[in-house]
Amino acid sequence: MTRTVEVTELALRDGHQSLLATRMALEDMVAACEDIDQAGYWSVECWGGATYDSCIRFLNEDPWERLRTFRKLLPNSRLQMLLRAQNLLGYRHYEDTVVDRFVDKSAENGMDVFRVFDALNDVRNLRRALTAVKRTGKHAEGTICYTTSPLHTVGAFVDMALQLRDLGCDSICIKDMAALLKPQPAYDLVRGIKEKCGEDTIVHVHVHSTTGVTLVSLMKAIEAGADIVDTAISSLSLGPGHNPTEALVEMLEGTGYETRLDKERLVKIKEHFAAVRPRYAEFESKFIGVESQIFESQIPGGMISNMESQLKQQGAGDRVKDVMEEVPRVRKDAGYPPLVTPSSQIVGTQAVFNVLMGRYKSLTGEFADLMLGYYGETIGSRDPEVVKAAYEHAKKEPITGRPADLLKPEWDELRKQALALDGCNGSDEDVLTFAMFPQVAPKFFGQRSQGPKNLSKSPTPATSAAAPSSDGKAPVSSRVEYKVKIGDKSHNVIVEPA
Amino acid sequence: MTRTVEVTELALRDGHQSLLATRMALEDMVAACEDIDQAGYWSVECWGGATYDSCIRFLNEDPWERLRTFRKLLPNSRLQMLLRAQNLLGYRHYEDTVVDRFVDKSAENGMDVFRVFDALNDVRNLRRALTAVKRTGKHAEGTICYTTSPLHTVGAFVDMALQLRDLGCDSICIKDMAALLKPQPAYDLVRGIKEKCGEDTIVHVHVHSTTGVTLVSLMKAIEAGADIVDTAISSLSLGPGHNPTEALVEMLEGTGYETRLDKERLVKIKEHFAAVRPRYAEFESKFIGVESQIFESQIPGGMISNMESQLKQQGAGDRVKDVMEEVPRVRKDAGYPPLVTPSSQIVGTQAVFNVLMGRYKSLTGEFADLMLGYYGETIGSRDPEVVKAAYEHAKKEPITGRPADLLKPEWDELRKQALALDGCNGSDEDVLTFAMFPQVAPKFFGQRSQGPKNLSKSPTPATSAAAPSSDGKAPVSSRVEYKVKIGDKSHNVIVEPA
Repeated sequence: MTRTVEVTELALRDGHQSLLATRMALEDMVAACEDIDQAGYWSVECWGGATYDSCIRFLNEDPWERLRTFRKLLPNSRLQMLLRAQNLLGYRHYEDTVVDRFVDKSAENGMDVFRVFDALNDVRNLRRALTAVKRTGKHAEGTICYTTSPLHTVGAFVDMALQLRDLGCDSICIKDMAALLKPQPAYDLVRGIKEKCGEDTIVHVHVHSTTGVTLVSLMKAIEAGADIVDTAISSLSLGPGHNPTEALVEMLEGTGYETRLDKERLVKIKEHFAAVRPRYAEFESKFIGVESQIFESQIPGGMISNMESQLKQQGAGDRVKDVMEEVPRVRKDAGYPPLVTPSSQIVGTQAVFNVLMGRYKSLTGEFADLMLGYYGETIGSRDPEVVKAAYEHAKKEPITGRPADLLKPEWDELRKQALALDGCNGSDEDVLTFAMFPQVAPKFFGQRSQGPKNLSKSPTPATSAAAPSSDGKAPVSSRVEYKVKIGDKSHNVIVEPA
Repeated sequence: MTRTVEVTELALRDGHQSLLATRMALEDMVAACEDIDQAGYWSVECWGGATYDSCIRFLNEDPWERLRTFRKLLPNSRLQMLLRAQNLLGYRHYEDTVVDRFVDKSAENGMDVFRVFDALNDVRNLRRALTAVKRTGKHAEGTICYTTSPLHTVGAFVDMALQLRDLGCDSICIKDMAALLKPQPAYDLVRGIKEKCGEDTIVHVHVHSTTGVTLVSLMKAIEAGADIVDTAISSLSLGPGHNPTEALVEMLEGTGYETRLDKERLVKIKEHFAAVRPRYAEFESKFIGVESQIFESQIPGGMISNMESQLKQQGAGDRVKDVMEEVPRVRKDAGYPPLVTPSSQIVGTQAVFNVLMGRYKSLTGEFADLMLGYYGETIGSRDPEVVKAAYEHAKKEPITGRPADLLKPEWDELRKQALALDGCNGSDEDVLTFAMFPQVAPKFFGQRSQGPKNLSKSPTPATSAAAPSSDGKAPVSSRVEYKVKIGDKSHNVIVEPA
């Protein structure tokens, strides 16, 4: 009589991405892999845009080598990745055959489940990547980015689910990156998908815990028939991260639902990451509580800290509140895109510009592209005045077609440029690294042979609460008074922050 | 069609008790009171054993003055307290007329809702206090301490609820101090009480958040008909504390249940405590995640840290795990008492003794009393061998009656002793302070005139992670190097931990 609920473990990707600025070195995950592999998860999320970026930018790790290592260490597990559809793991649209190659190479190196999303929920942007995954025989998961707006009704999301089903997706993911999915909408949405797409449609629910309500949403999603839910082991959970895996297991006791997870393995995984996490204290998200005001602002936690640092750089750190109020307006003008990479950055940066320089007095190139349709279609219509401003800024006509249709074949050129770089090994994998991260790849190729750099082992004590200053010495963080004796004389010494 | 769910705000009592070692000064609560008073809570919990103790032990605050201040500042709110029944706010049983006087004085000073619990769930111990509350015309809430054991079935708890109803309780509280109440049992228990005691029986649910599942339990309790639930404002929530008030409000959207709470007021209350909390960083609970292993050990979070410090004092800090395994055994031998003050301390200390000295080789006086019935009846029978050991230790016969029946009138003697103390003002309130805290009261009376001592304003910077040393000065916690200029000469100064 009991129904099994399957679980995806997020610790190896979104867990440390959300809590430790994606800085965890592969070395610090290896010892947990056997327990993860044996615990009974449906899949193990372990790869995505931010981890790839962090590998080459900060950790001097080859992300493909990381993937192959996971493949070896998790022989019984489905490996899962998050793929930005036509953007791959980068920030622009790639031509279709580049998308195909990336998917082929990822599958070849061991990826099993491809969670494919588009920041605008434009299904045309999802098609090529999903088709490529299907061709490899791997699991193609079509993704609905969950957000709230007057237009984002359950009916609208269910329509998108139907389109994803018609593309042949093996499962449908509801991805709630900002923890906006409340219990009743979670229930209604899962039920709606099951009723319209068929009860045998696999529904996979991904929620963050930022607002504090989403474990309840998982309960309701499960009651509505959700098949798989995403959680992170407790020692890498909560705050802007995810609900704790162990809490999910315990929550279901006696409800008629159960996971297949082995509690003893979970304890070991928990203890592993509890031991590792403090080493990354300097990267730790400062926000560890619950933030319900996100329901009003619709701004994901990570986006707020980005905007704060942008504002501080401009000497306008006191205008965070103005920007938080501007974001929903910019989002409305842009036709209510969900706020997720890259739309979150594009909308957030434009909101900062609007506050500092006046509304749409200055536009970023990316925002102009968004307004002109170069990222795809949004659910709502875009404000004509702002579209006009974008046209004047970018000197480009608005488009209504699939953005990637405008792109010419680019693989050969990308390959030529990559191969010209010192340290490039000539593989398709290296070409893809260059294609997605053209600024970072040259330096990475050049120093790759030095091997991985584990930031938790840097000379700065990772447990220090103070951020290291640029010279590596701890700054004075508050006024301290000392009595100092030099020779026979005693002095009162006051040290204050510079 | 929507049912209103009422809410008790815990920030002023259990919130800071669970997260900041009960150290918050009244002064740091005052500015939030108007918003709390206007937010639409059913009641405001603001008084109890630990806050009373902390007032006189650490804060040099008269707890009765605190109560009167709350009464003035929260004119529209029900003030709520937690009362240890026959133990009042102390650690022993008091003679009935002392119980009466305490309740009378509390009501007179402004208390509205008395949540009355007994650590053993022995209804005979609850009777006098509940009757006294009824006589004052105030709200008498009978409490079931929730715990798990082979004997703690829904049926057994519902039987207790029936007894509480028959005592004339105005409401029944399910008190889950260790966050053991999972969603399905929460549903079954509330439903069971409603069905057996009548649908109009007011059920009030108190859960901690330690294990991470209890917001879901509140959802299920509400679905089963719970009338009032306890939460704490988000900035004083989570970890060993409680679920965030704002998360409860948001969670209910669209479910057919709603609170009466004013979200704008909640933001203000949140911001107030977010600003205050860091000043108490040195008292902050170190544990802020989720701890699911409590479901196995049944040991509340606060109890673990107590046992750890006991073990460290004995130079046996490495035996925590042994003690955690011993606690459930001791609890079984004692007839499965819930673990809550004072039974948690009594069982925990005996478990430490067992591990360090051999099982029941040495008994504490309190544990012997527990085994001999001097705290009341437990749900299970007590192990005869251990009862025998207790008898040999304490040289007292086991009892089966209500413990307080053995007590002789004691008010006149307590009054005489209290009045003999320097600084005692002769009021019944002072006599009660002496009665409940005979060791602490003399010092408190002596220094009361110096006025409250706000620990968040001590010379030690409260944001320092280091614990204050006994002389109140902050110790140097790591090596620091400074360049210090005195007159024209520059010196390198090194300050190292002593």
